[in-house]
Amino acid sequence: MEAFGQSIPFDRELARQDVQGSLAHAEMLASVGLIAKKDFTAIRKGLQEIRRDIEDGKFVFDPANEDIHMSIEADLTRRIGDAAKKLHTGRSRNDQVATDLRLWTREKIDAITERLRLLMLAFVAVAERERDIIIPGYTHLQRAQPVMLAHHLLAYVEMFGRDRERLADCRRRTNRLPLGSGALAGSTLPLDRELIRDRLGFDSLCENSMDAVSDRDFVLETLSDLAIVAIHTSRLAEDIILWTSSEWGLAKLDDAWSTGSSIMPQKRNPDLLELTRGKTGRVVGSLVSLLTVVKGLPMTYNRDLQEDKEPLFDAVRTVEFVLECLTEFLPTLRFNKTRAAEMLKDGYLDATVLAEYLVEKGLPFRSAHEVSGQLVRLGEDSGRQLGELSLEEMRAVSTLITNEIFKRLDPARTPTSYATAGAAGPRSVTKALGGWKRKLAKKA
Amino acid sequence: MEAFGQSIPFDRELARQDVQGSLAHAEMLASVGLIAKKDFTAIRKGLQEIRRDIEDGKFVFDPANEDIHMSIEADLTRRIGDAAKKLHTGRSRNDQVATDLRLWTREKIDAITERLRLLMLAFVAVAERERDIIIPGYTHLQRAQPVMLAHHLLAYVEMFGRDRERLADCRRRTNRLPLGSGALAGSTLPLDRELIRDRLGFDSLCENSMDAVSDRDFVLETLSDLAIVAIHTSRLAEDIILWTSSEWGLAKLDDAWSTGSSIMPQKRNPDLLELTRGKTGRVVGSLVSLLTVVKGLPMTYNRDLQEDKEPLFDAVRTVEFVLECLTEFLPTLRFNKTRAAEMLKDGYLDATVLAEYLVEKGLPFRSAHEVSGQLVRLGEDSGRQLGELSLEEMRAVSTLITNEIFKRLDPARTPTSYATAGAAGPRSVTKALGGWKRKLAKKA
Amino acid sequence: MEAFGQSIPFDRELARQDVQGSLAHAEMLASVGLIAKKDFTAIRKGLQEIRRDIEDGKFVFDPANEDIHMSIEADLTRRIGDAAKKLHTGRSRNDQVATDLRLWTREKIDAITERLRLLMLAFVAVAERERDIIIPGYTHLQRAQPVMLAHHLLAYVEMFGRDRERLADCRRRTNRLPLGSGALAGSTLPLDRELIRDRLGFDSLCENSMDAVSDRDFVLETLSDLAIVAIHTSRLAEDIILWTSSEWGLAKLDDAWSTGSSIMPQKRNPDLLELTRGKTGRVVGSLVSLLTVVKGLPMTYNRDLQEDKEPLFDAVRTVEFVLECLTEFLPTLRFNKTRAAEMLKDGYLDATVLAEYLVEKGLPFRSAHEVSGQLVRLGEDSGRQLGELSLEEMRAVSTLITNEIFKRLDPARTPTSYATAGAAGPRSVTKALGGWKRKLAKKA
Amino acid sequence: MEAFGQSIPFDRELARQDVQGSLAHAEMLASVGLIAKKDFTAIRKGLQEIRRDIEDGKFVFDPANEDIHMSIEADLTRRIGDAAKKLHTGRSRNDQVATDLRLWTREKIDAITERLRLLMLAFVAVAERERDIIIPGYTHLQRAQPVMLAHHLLAYVEMFGRDRERLADCRRRTNRLPLGSGALAGSTLPLDRELIRDRLGFDSLCENSMDAVSDRDFVLETLSDLAIVAIHTSRLAEDIILWTSSEWGLAKLDDAWSTGSSIMPQKRNPDLLELTRGKTGRVVGSLVSLLTVVKGLPMTYNRDLQEDKEPLFDAVRTVEFVLECLTEFLPTLRFNKTRAAEMLKDGYLDATVLAEYLVEKGLPFRSAHEVSGQLVRLGEDSGRQLGELSLEEMRAVSTLITNEIFKRLDPARTPTSYATAGAAGPRSVTKALGGWKRKLAKKA
Repeated sequence: MEAFGQSIPFDRELARQDVQGSLAHAEMLASVGLIAKKDFTAIRKGLQEIRRDIEDGKFVFDPANEDIHMSIEADLTRRIGDAAKKLHTGRSRNDQVATDLRLWTREKIDAITERLRLLMLAFVAVAERERDIIIPGYTHLQRAQPVMLAHHLLAYVEMFGRDRERLADCRRRTNRLPLGSGALAGSTLPLDRELIRDRLGFDSLCENSMDAVSDRDFVLETLSDLAIVAIHTSRLAEDIILWTSSEWGLAKLDDAWSTGSSIMPQKRNPDLLELTRGKTGRVVGSLVSLLTVVKGLPMTYNRDLQEDKEPLFDAVRTVEFVLECLTEFLPTLRFNKTRAAEMLKDGYLDATVLAEYLVEKGLPFRSAHEVSGQLVRLGEDSGRQLGELSLEEMRAVSTLITNEIFKRLDPARTPTSYATAGAAGPRSVTKALGGWKRKLAKKA
Repeated sequence: MEAFGQSIPFDRELARQDVQGSLAHAEMLASVGLIAKKDFTAIRKGLQEIRRDIEDGKFVFDPANEDIHMSIEADLTRRIGDAAKKLHTGRSRNDQVATDLRLWTREKIDAITERLRLLMLAFVAVAERERDIIIPGYTHLQRAQPVMLAHHLLAYVEMFGRDRERLADCRRRTNRLPLGSGALAGSTLPLDRELIRDRLGFDSLCENSMDAVSDRDFVLETLSDLAIVAIHTSRLAEDIILWTSSEWGLAKLDDAWSTGSSIMPQKRNPDLLELTRGKTGRVVGSLVSLLTVVKGLPMTYNRDLQEDKEPLFDAVRTVEFVLECLTEFLPTLRFNKTRAAEMLKDGYLDATVLAEYLVEKGLPFRSAHEVSGQLVRLGEDSGRQLGELSLEEMRAVSTLITNEIFKRLDPARTPTSYATAGAAGPRSVTKALGGWKRKLAKKA
Repeated sequence: MEAFGQSIPFDRELARQDVQGSLAHAEMLASVGLIAKKDFTAIRKGLQEIRRDIEDGKFVFDPANEDIHMSIEADLTRRIGDAAKKLHTGRSRNDQVATDLRLWTREKIDAITERLRLLMLAFVAVAERERDIIIPGYTHLQRAQPVMLAHHLLAYVEMFGRDRERLADCRRRTNRLPLGSGALAGSTLPLDRELIRDRLGFDSLCENSMDAVSDRDFVLETLSDLAIVAIHTSRLAEDIILWTSSEWGLAKLDDAWSTGSSIMPQKRNPDLLELTRGKTGRVVGSLVSLLTVVKGLPMTYNRDLQEDKEPLFDAVRTVEFVLECLTEFLPTLRFNKTRAAEMLKDGYLDATVLAEYLVEKGLPFRSAHEVSGQLVRLGEDSGRQLGELSLEEMRAVSTLITNEIFKRLDPARTPTSYATAGAAGPRSVTKALGGWKRKLAKKA
Repeated sequence: MEAFGQSIPFDRELARQDVQGSLAHAEMLASVGLIAKKDFTAIRKGLQEIRRDIEDGKFVFDPANEDIHMSIEADLTRRIGDAAKKLHTGRSRNDQVATDLRLWTREKIDAITERLRLLMLAFVAVAERERDIIIPGYTHLQRAQPVMLAHHLLAYVEMFGRDRERLADCRRRTNRLPLGSGALAGSTLPLDRELIRDRLGFDSLCENSMDAVSDRDFVLETLSDLAIVAIHTSRLAEDIILWTSSEWGLAKLDDAWSTGSSIMPQKRNPDLLELTRGKTGRVVGSLVSLLTVVKGLPMTYNRDLQEDKEPLFDAVRTVEFVLECLTEFLPTLRFNKTRAAEMLKDGYLDATVLAEYLVEKGLPFRSAHEVSGQLVRLGEDSGRQLGELSLEEMRAVSTLITNEIFKRLDPARTPTSYATAGAAGPRSVTKALGGWKRKLAKKA
């Protein structure tokens, strides 16, 4: 049974937060007179030493203890004697562990928020550097319209930007103090929860003691947010895996970020990106894990909830690591401008622009599409691009077409004509780059 | 292939939103001069008629059309002729469907937010009505400390309150306009996205056209939020199923909300609650469904994304229905005060209060626990509750105990002694009731 | 409550199975003397009429009834009067619905098993037709070694073959009879379960009445098996989406199986395959759905279990449809042999064969790899394939190389050298084609 | 990148299997003459030493190596020099890792199959020991009919029995040899796959090299099977948690298998069972994890597949541990026969038997139910059980009732009347106990 219930192998992750929470709790106990000042002084000194040992990697996590909380209290007792036995006054394992976990989650939300910022900055930098590359934009993995590579990259900045917003919202709900809720009912002792809240930097109190000890919404929400982050990185990975295939040939992996084989020294396997894509699985799995755990649990604390930690820890560790690697990796990816230019020549990527030109000239939309389609077919039959058709050939299909059409028809130049807010051309890209640089200038 | 790709059987759900979006789009087209005023007038009239038909259930969803968008455009053409062919100017199915789905999701977030409010009000009303019932609070499904039933009920109000917060945050991210992003690249036409945004009540624009047409984060986030709502209702269901079992006997289901059998007319099966608990599965499943769909998709729009609708529609429908039923059901649940009082007599639920009394008297926490434990054992051995021990017997264990202890020792009265913020006694319950009544007084 | 619990909208799917089960049950009741022969005759006649109405689509599913079982019994009563009231003798809704669902699942397992066979036959036919196409085989989506296209296609036959095995195993566990288990405890009546088992073609009895009414393992197992089928189709879809991209250009979609746009008449979007890939989500979601439902349910029947049907029905419908479409689609896919040949020229796909040649000549494996790597680098630096290097150049690196190497070095011919069982060359492909044709010659 | 891709921290789990696979591979290489006999002798000696070191916990997993396979080869080279460089002849990491993982999975399937047997035996023993306890059987968590406790326990034996069947089926599909498939295409070397197959005890070969290196169905199937095992243990846990609540009071946890608190020495928290129920989450999560990973992967090996190991290892470890603990725990659970007898007195658990009695007397089923219902109501109104009504009272409702009814009416005796196969009474329980003892007598 001991082995089964033991959580020390993983909840040691909470060691620092446990000390932090205990320091605030002890201060409060002294402040309301439930323990003597000198006991508090002893406790504080002991905990500070323990904190130092933890930070220096010197703290011994004794497996004789069931969990990190007992481990630290036992160690404190060894250091300062009987005063340690007063530390747990007015506190239960239930509100203590909830507090520790919220402190930990808050820290990690902040860390991941910052990692997202750095990754977004990397995207902005590469987008700016590669401003002059035009590539085919795809729908259905079929070439559709020309877009600036920078615009494609900035699409990911939008995604990661939303991830930051979501985490910020989640942080607000995480940053509430359960301590002082006891095992489930609160306490008859005059605990000052506000003082603890203030010392630990929580925004507010968990307002219902029964909810406080059994609520794991903040973990579920963090896991949901991380699952969406992982989904975004999986899409990015897929894009780059395609770009670096022989078939696309649009980008090349740096040696440092690919693996080869002794036998095919020219081969560059995108392992980083495949692992990134694959690791989405474990983050989604962690979310499902906890949803399954919490489903149908009666009030209040049930030991099932111990199963909240490993999925959270693993998902956080995974996402942190993936984001860090991608941030270092991205600037090393080399794009092949020549290949990009070549790719634009296939697929009549300017067909839409031609139709829009006709709409501007007054042709109804559906008819404009038909004219454009006819000219594409003409081009296809004769092996030419739209811009290689003669004016006469075009006017034979629609007399609305005049010479100015040729300015628009080269897919490599099409993006400069994009006129709408948020479009794939230089106007919106310039605006977006400026906007993001401002927004990302400093840490959240 | 047609059968395979057809979405009319489910995306007819978006009919109203599709008309709404088209009205704004047409107004914009006229405003920037891309279609003539009279075309707009015709389109508007036609769409308004269609809207009325949809609302009256008279609109014919012709299965010859692939999706709801084609269905409506075809119908419009039938009504107003060629002008209808100009409606799709500067628009693509990709940005159109994203817009419709955001309008739909926004409406449903609002509807569920309101349903949550009504359910919370029902909880508040029942909590207020049953203020004088004290029940055992449980940890590990073992009786632990006495709590006010009202406090237990209010724990659920906290949960649903967080659900409302989450949905409000999700709404902000949902309420952004993709229209004007075209198939993926924006447009060379001078579309006024701001005008559409204003008419449709969106907060802002989707700022990157490629992201705009392929982003389904708002659906994922809505599904995550609904999964957490469902988890909460599953916990509530579990609680009430236990309460209404013969063994608990704490509450009784109204006939209208239970099923019996002809053979056991006294039996009351909690089908509503079992179904509520079971339906958590489909909401979690819907979330996993879409996470699986989006994982690893390259940019931008891929037809896989059509699979976003059914899980969303089903999860919304399920949660709406569950919340509605629970709201009607809750006030009909009858609590058995006598049984509650009886339950308090077992399990030494005042042991913690006794320990806290000793802490107040100056005994260190761990020692106080020991004393309390000894007295519990004494009670157990002699078949008495703590309050039935004599003062002498108690003082034989600790001389810190005086006569005043008896005022605290009856579990039925313990909650009045709870002193901390958010505790399970009348002080915090009164405050919470007042707070919620204020907060829930009007729609979000 | 009625609306909430009603299952008629989806469990009408079980109508035919319900009649089938009732016919066997009635026969048994008559056989053991619990109902009179003439009652049985009336019941049988009534049920046969109902069955005919169901098959002809004429049966009226009256929403006044809670579920399909009540609906059919009510209809039977309308037809034959009081005798109908004896049909339910010794039976409960719990064992009845479990029986119906097992009958349904068994049928669908058989149907999907057959669909898999037909799809496998389609693969075998295309593999045989395209025996002469050699393509690059990929690892990490990087070209690695030449393989026969037929071999690549046959890899999918292996996968679907395992799916058939799994379903066959699942069928054995599905094909056990719960009827006669009553509500949960069996019956004091002398029901002859063996007779029913025999009539309904079940292999054996569910041997424990409590397990019989609450067991949904067969649904979970079916869903797991279908999830793996869906994973396989998602991989196939991904492969073909890549093959039909402009970049790969290895295969071309038939018009009937792609969607285009009026404006880009040359565009062929692989919607079928994208939907196939996307629909994996709903099958995985359905599995998760039911796992979530069943988790933590106490014995025996709980109404939560009603939520078993919709995920099962949806997953079965989805997989059936996907398999059917793929079977029709596959033969229409046109491969581009010229492009395949071109693709082989890049990437030194014969480097491994060269190393293996050296191993045969006695060079240790790791050294052989090095030599091969050096020659690849030489080729790369000078823009030549391995087969374009001169014998002198090669011998300068390793004197083990002789003239015969040139016979092996053309990637287009490499597969003929593959010697191991199951390798990507003609020897094993021929054997596999023959084997599969035999195995798939007749229905399971 | 190294840190990102490194798998040594978890794939060291495969160390023993890697050596086992290499031994067979080396023997084969020697047998077909690809390496010299003396090289084989050296390799064998080195690998045997390594195996011993691994078993003794002395093997050093050098983090400088990327994975366990490199780690062992590097160690072998250190021990025996150049001969080690020939070991990898005709082998690739792709087929090697697939082989190791299949060996590992096969072992674990066997281990879990045996653990299931031991747990089932524990159930059989307890069922036999407690043969004389009758308890209420529940549907909807409402008392429904009396059942033998042994029958309830044997329901779990049925479940775990199916788990064993499923694992046996999965084992057959796991037990196929991928080695000899190379990186993806097989080999031009004359490798004798049959010899390896024979040495490693595989049933057959993976018949398609491309499938062989990318197939992870056996992991998915193992995870599905384990998820169902976990679902079963979650249901069992829920049952026992209820039984040991104060409200049920049907069973009592042994001190060794519960946790208490210093303050409530009488309290017994069912932590083992709560953790068992909670750990279902991680097994389901692991399954979802891998489904997400594999979805949409193109052929053949992609590095994403490295993410197959941790979910599998964790799920196996979890299920093994849970089964082991439950097996030790179960016999220590003490049942309270007095409380069981008391529970039978409430709820008219003999109402169904009364109805069945009337059916035997010739009353149609629906009418029999009505009569029984009327008598229950009569009992309820007068606070009596059915057996406490007088014959006159009963006959006033139906003259079919005679004196013999009283023999059936005591719920404590009802089970002896159960007559159907698999019912909840002594007849089928005796048969089932005998059957299981035979079937479980020896290891699979």
